[in-house]
Amino acid sequence: MKLELLASQTHSTIEQGSPDLDITSTAGLDLAGEGEITFLANPKYTPQIAGTKAAAIFVSEGVAIERTDIAILRAKDPYLAYTRAMRMFFPDAQVKPFVHASAVIDSSANVASDVEIHANAVIGANCTIASGVRIMPNATIYDGVSIGEGSTIHSGVSIRENCEIGCNCVIHNNSTIGCDGFGYAKDEEKRWLKIPQTGRVVLEDDVEIGANTAIDCASVGETRIKRGAKIDNLVQIGHSCTIDEDALICSQTGLAGSSFIGKRVILTGQVGIAGHLKIGDDAIMTAKSATSHDVEPGKIMSGIPAFENRDWLRSTAAFRKLGDMAGRLRKLEKLVSGEK
Amino acid sequence: MKLELLASQTHSTIEQGSPDLDITSTAGLDLAGEGEITFLANPKYTPQIAGTKAAAIFVSEGVAIERTDIAILRAKDPYLAYTRAMRMFFPDAQVKPFVHASAVIDSSANVASDVEIHANAVIGANCTIASGVRIMPNATIYDGVSIGEGSTIHSGVSIRENCEIGCNCVIHNNSTIGCDGFGYAKDEEKRWLKIPQTGRVVLEDDVEIGANTAIDCASVGETRIKRGAKIDNLVQIGHSCTIDEDALICSQTGLAGSSFIGKRVILTGQVGIAGHLKIGDDAIMTAKSATSHDVEPGKIMSGIPAFENRDWLRSTAAFRKLGDMAGRLRKLEKLVSGEK
Amino acid sequence: MKLELLASQTHSTIEQGSPDLDITSTAGLDLAGEGEITFLANPKYTPQIAGTKAAAIFVSEGVAIERTDIAILRAKDPYLAYTRAMRMFFPDAQVKPFVHASAVIDSSANVASDVEIHANAVIGANCTIASGVRIMPNATIYDGVSIGEGSTIHSGVSIRENCEIGCNCVIHNNSTIGCDGFGYAKDEEKRWLKIPQTGRVVLEDDVEIGANTAIDCASVGETRIKRGAKIDNLVQIGHSCTIDEDALICSQTGLAGSSFIGKRVILTGQVGIAGHLKIGDDAIMTAKSATSHDVEPGKIMSGIPAFENRDWLRSTAAFRKLGDMAGRLRKLEKLVSGEK
Repeated sequence: MKLELLASQTHSTIEQGSPDLDITSTAGLDLAGEGEITFLANPKYTPQIAGTKAAAIFVSEGVAIERTDIAILRAKDPYLAYTRAMRMFFPDAQVKPFVHASAVIDSSANVASDVEIHANAVIGANCTIASGVRIMPNATIYDGVSIGEGSTIHSGVSIRENCEIGCNCVIHNNSTIGCDGFGYAKDEEKRWLKIPQTGRVVLEDDVEIGANTAIDCASVGETRIKRGAKIDNLVQIGHSCTIDEDALICSQTGLAGSSFIGKRVILTGQVGIAGHLKIGDDAIMTAKSATSHDVEPGKIMSGIPAFENRDWLRSTAAFRKLGDMAGRLRKLEKLVSGEK
Repeated sequence: MKLELLASQTHSTIEQGSPDLDITSTAGLDLAGEGEITFLANPKYTPQIAGTKAAAIFVSEGVAIERTDIAILRAKDPYLAYTRAMRMFFPDAQVKPFVHASAVIDSSANVASDVEIHANAVIGANCTIASGVRIMPNATIYDGVSIGEGSTIHSGVSIRENCEIGCNCVIHNNSTIGCDGFGYAKDEEKRWLKIPQTGRVVLEDDVEIGANTAIDCASVGETRIKRGAKIDNLVQIGHSCTIDEDALICSQTGLAGSSFIGKRVILTGQVGIAGHLKIGDDAIMTAKSATSHDVEPGKIMSGIPAFENRDWLRSTAAFRKLGDMAGRLRKLEKLVSGEK
Repeated sequence: MKLELLASQTHSTIEQGSPDLDITSTAGLDLAGEGEITFLANPKYTPQIAGTKAAAIFVSEGVAIERTDIAILRAKDPYLAYTRAMRMFFPDAQVKPFVHASAVIDSSANVASDVEIHANAVIGANCTIASGVRIMPNATIYDGVSIGEGSTIHSGVSIRENCEIGCNCVIHNNSTIGCDGFGYAKDEEKRWLKIPQTGRVVLEDDVEIGANTAIDCASVGETRIKRGAKIDNLVQIGHSCTIDEDALICSQTGLAGSSFIGKRVILTGQVGIAGHLKIGDDAIMTAKSATSHDVEPGKIMSGIPAFENRDWLRSTAAFRKLGDMAGRLRKLEKLVSGEK
């Protein structure tokens, strides 16, 4: 790929090097070899520039590069430019339309002609499978599901009744979309009586779901994952939650029912969100934190229960010496009372 | 459905409105439309009664309703009555007996005639599948498993060798019942030597298991989930645990091996229970708590490690200002020592 | 099995009893019956020896046994010797070579003749399946995967493109090996742009993976689980991690990307490891702890964030009374200031 094409596709500017230079792949600063393009985003790696064998590098606008034997592409965000370059060199797999003879597709399903339906996949009654969809082996699509253009459903995934998957979604292996929410009423004998879970799950466009994740259907209505949200492996999304656009939910995080996660919120690993909460846009919950209260937009929250990260850092620093503090307090009490 | 029938089936009493009134469905106070029945359980929603379009409402015995244009059903527990109404309007799917041609059933399996065996399900040797069972697509039943009347096994579920599933159980998608427990001895070279896991899992009647949950077989004997216990998504039950009747285990909770969870215990989300413990009847562990000690019956426990919730609330309130406390203690020490 | 054979295979010495004694099985001290062998590893169970019906017992070298009617096998580590005995009585299932007619195997796959390929398993293009491998029902092996001799892949497992599984590995049900890592760059509109995940997962020999676990492929290169490492159910291993030999990772633990877990490290249940860290050989993280810093070899770490277990025990003991401490500090402040 010519440097010129790379520059235009990555919104970067050639500052040094020939537009005709052939770039063959992408690689990190330390691993890049002949013909490859790399990037510098974190200043701590600047010393590695002297030794890199890369043919070209994305750098941000303020950074000086002394080497004259390497092509330089200036980018506002070198990591983003590099990601775009990677996507050019490693594009998504092309759909090669076929339906495997062992796949079981209900005769009432409406399946576009240019799809991949792999071995032993099962598609239920009244499903709609749009153009460019890939359904990998041993996936199960229950009745009434629709899957939008260009989406990929990996092996072992189950999509339950009447769920709707948008366009260009990816659902990784063994995830479950639309299982029953966990809702019970206690009867007179203190036994649990199941509350019917009659809703469904809607994934809007460009949603990616990791492996072994479970998203409950709504008890009534919809659990909705909005455009561009990304959910990692082993995540629990309870019934009737809404995940707003471009939210990012990392592995092993769990949401109880009916919570609303705002736009661009980041829930890092192993976070817990109680039910019926609102997490404001652009808020961040740090790893292993949990909240049973709403979170205001833009806040960074930590701890169990969570409070502002800045305060939590002070509290946890003090906590390491809490045993000492307890001893010192006792000593002081003795001292003060002894004086009297 | 006539109001009279609803009242009798939900153990409630018509206080206002015609027994002949036709009720068409159920819905929450804010969403209920013409002909629908709703409920009031939480007093904070009382103001919504003025505006609801519902035709009828379940209310508890003490509550005054001013509207005369709405049928009133008095119930001891309006939420329970409403749940019963929902179950009348949204009954479980009826079994429509069939065995899909692509299902693979070992010739030694004993399968009742009125079952649903869906596409690509696999049933091993010497299994017993009782009347009214539904086995959804791509589920795998290993050899020697028995499944009791009226149970549903969802797609992607694996039930390992010799496990026993009771009547009217539901196992949601991609869960694993009876995988090996995590048991190893360290050898002379500090390598892990696997301890054979020879036991099985027994689910008694009316047990529901969420999606993507793993329940280990016992190392010897049984891991047992007793009548009426409910387990959510992504839960880990270690080998040789016993979960007693009507216990409720929420998502992403994990139990190490050989623990005993008492009757009606509630383990909320992301709880951890160490091995060889006894959690007494009716105890509650709040979200993200963990214990490595037994818990007495009826206690509410919180924190890592867990102690009584009431104390934990005080401790966590103080923790938010622990940085300040540390500073104040230092200041006080200086003050006191400076006085000397 | 003759006592003599048991002794030699378990590296133990017959101190009492006939070498010709027939041993029929293994069982714990309390459960062992006629003809069975048991063990004493934990001194607290010594009183049970008086009542056990076992025919033989493994005991460590210093322990005195008064009974003369029971065969005694001295072993350096009675638990290890007993584990070896269990493995003799409960050996792994023998492979019974067959390929089920419903399995779908790409014609380009290279499959050894003495393998078990169960119903509805799917094996992709250019896979290599070595001698003695068992692939259970509804498992999915994507293109380019190789599986080494004697490994077992349980039902519902998905192994993604180009992953490599060593010899004598076991992967339990519904686990996912090689799903995409969770990597995105933020674009100019604050949307997430997926970073191609081009790497793979390598499991070396003797690795065991629990059920419903997810191991991400590397973004570039390899996520590597080294020889003898054991990983429990519902574990998350992020992209590009390395798990060194004989590490033990318990259920519901999660690792973000690019971390290195040293030899024989034990991560107990529900632990969290942030990205780009190094956990030194033989370190232990206790349950529910989390670190965002490297851990030195041999350390025992606890808490969120984690610090040395010894200090954490003191801090958590004090934490239970933190509400009181806060009150006592306020009182002392008043007292001291009042003196002035």
